[in-house]
Amino acid sequence: AIKHSASTSLVDKANYRHFMAKEIHEQPEVVGHTLARYVDMATERIALPVKLPFDFKDIQRISIVACGTASYAGYVGKYWIERFGRLPVELDVASEFRYREAPLRKGDLAIFISQSGETADTLAALRYAKAEGVHTLSVVNVATSTIARESETVLQTLAGPEIGVASTKAFTCQLMVLAAIAVAAGKARGELSDADENRLVKGLVEIPRLMAAALSTEPQIEKLAREIAKHKDVVYLGRGTSYPLALEGALKLKEISYIHAEGYAAGELKHGPIALIDENMPVVVIAPHDKVFEKTVSNMQEVAARGGNIILMTDARGAAEATVDSLVTIVLPDMASAFTPMVYAVPVQLLAYHTAVVMGTDVDQPRNLAKSVTVE
Amino acid sequence: AIKHSASTSLVDKANYRHFMAKEIHEQPEVVGHTLARYVDMATERIALPVKLPFDFKDIQRISIVACGTASYAGYVGKYWIERFGRLPVELDVASEFRYREAPLRKGDLAIFISQSGETADTLAALRYAKAEGVHTLSVVNVATSTIARESETVLQTLAGPEIGVASTKAFTCQLMVLAAIAVAAGKARGELSDADENRLVKGLVEIPRLMAAALSTEPQIEKLAREIAKHKDVVYLGRGTSYPLALEGALKLKEISYIHAEGYAAGELKHGPIALIDENMPVVVIAPHDKVFEKTVSNMQEVAARGGNIILMTDARGAAEATVDSLVTIVLPDMASAFTPMVYAVPVQLLAYHTAVVMGTDVDQPRNLAKSVTVE
Repeated sequence: AIKHSASTSLVDKANYRHFMAKEIHEQPEVVGHTLARYVDMATERIALPVKLPFDFKDIQRISIVACGTASYAGYVGKYWIERFGRLPVELDVASEFRYREAPLRKGDLAIFISQSGETADTLAALRYAKAEGVHTLSVVNVATSTIARESETVLQTLAGPEIGVASTKAFTCQLMVLAAIAVAAGKARGELSDADENRLVKGLVEIPRLMAAALSTEPQIEKLAREIAKHKDVVYLGRGTSYPLALEGALKLKEISYIHAEGYAAGELKHGPIALIDENMPVVVIAPHDKVFEKTVSNMQEVAARGGNIILMTDARGAAEATVDSLVTIVLPDMASAFTPMVYAVPVQLLAYHTAVVMGTDVDQPRNLAKSVTVE
Repeated sequence: AIKHSASTSLVDKANYRHFMAKEIHEQPEVVGHTLARYVDMATERIALPVKLPFDFKDIQRISIVACGTASYAGYVGKYWIERFGRLPVELDVASEFRYREAPLRKGDLAIFISQSGETADTLAALRYAKAEGVHTLSVVNVATSTIARESETVLQTLAGPEIGVASTKAFTCQLMVLAAIAVAAGKARGELSDADENRLVKGLVEIPRLMAAALSTEPQIEKLAREIAKHKDVVYLGRGTSYPLALEGALKLKEISYIHAEGYAAGELKHGPIALIDENMPVVVIAPHDKVFEKTVSNMQEVAARGGNIILMTDARGAAEATVDSLVTIVLPDMASAFTPMVYAVPVQLLAYHTAVVMGTDVDQPRNLAKSVTVE
């Protein structure tokens, strides 16, 4: 474990039972701080705090490299950058990126994401990318970290010290920075107009309020957690940006409850994993009412037909239109769909947290895990 | 399900209890047939059966698109093409590729992999890619299929009719075609010399013999399967090209035994999933003695320290050098490391097969699954 700028003893749990609970609840605030650093509220435009040493117009491909939860933030970022910037992005886990010596084109961009800024594999990947002559940009929470020092450009998340081993607020702050990068890329490449940018920034400005609203699902999720805690296995499904969030939801549950949870792209269900589904399998479906919603509903119907217990996380419209019996439907606020992962992360995190609490595991210090993985 | 060129009734199980067993054992032969179609044995050079309508030198990026097992073949192909051709390759599951409308550059290449050639999402992805103006190449087993008909270039696998729902011989034949594509790309781009090509082709020519040798692990794996069948969860780990094979091993076990198996990049273990490891968790480690072997050994040590039961699939040198107590070590033939997935696929498939047999599931027709997924 590494030293944080504020040591554990200086950070208290306030009225929360665990740091993780406190950090989940801090998210509207710290995501708001991060937002304020990356947008100009007055003009409703993206305003990165540093001048980028490259033009997105000259970039042919972006590599995003990270480990664990940060890699799932990167995966969401990939979808956003591809959508807004029409620029191909590859998401890579750092241990694979560095040892396979991924081919990079001089002058392209690689983005590295790490809460601590000390993750060993991510740092090694950064050094490899620098040697290959690509621009390097890091998204880190600790501005004095090695990864920050060695990157050409640093975009800091303002999550504040994160103490719980299972990352929560660092993840959503990483998403906010990546959203800002994606809109900036779209603007620079002429894929987004001024009006598009204004509309997207308005969407970002709403996120802290929507995250706060999402926290109000907690009593319902606490009750659901008592049911989930009875199971040994859980499947998470999503499409589009909800797919990496399904991966993150599964990882979070694994990390702190030791339940074997696995995330899948909903469209892949029929290509194998559906064999696992029976009446003992809870299936968490992350499905805001977006353009792939209907496709996800048809996957839910397949799960329901095999007796799987569906926990549906959606919005009011999705809840009304989903023609499937779900065990529980968690209704999240309506929102412009592009940035849903920041809001849907909240119930996903709460579900992992409360399940672990019911099971009596050590939430802030789960077995086998370290906060920062500074060895390979 | 779709019609095969040879209908089920025309294909018998010979002396095997299940089609899957027969198809696993056919692999040295059908991979050999596929090899013979793609290399010139006399000159030891790659000889694709069709002239490609593009030059790999002009391709900046390749997208490989598939579903399920075929996507894991594609993932291995990505590693090979990146290594031999120094050309960036993105692997995408078809349902995500098509709905996120992945950005493609006109004149680049997209490769589609499907045993049946009728996979609905893969077909839709192919149509999307064509409309975007990229070259399309399909790797299919059924030459008369829709995907074959609609692709600019078709490279057929000569696996013969595959009846077992869980794909085995189609997978290894797909790998052989992808290996030929990778070497061809490396040669065309000047990354491989004539001597390199000869050396790599010699390595490919050895594969059928090595796969036959790998089949001799069957008695040992049959015994191991009785142990695995007692568990509800299994983790598969690998690095480099063994990583997608770990994903495939987990999928295979899921599909036919309904055990919740999950594959992970070994380097990601510490970033969360290691929390799952305790003395009840079998961990299958796919680790030929290659340049990442030592890194994988250190991941095994972490698993062993938490009481996990290691099943190590390696070669003689790896078995001698792995300083970890494993429950079982499966020793596979020594080989030039680049093409190991075709050989290591054999014990991985046998383990899934024998575990399902012990558990008494319907191996050839596992619950919930169809052979070809012709709906979304």
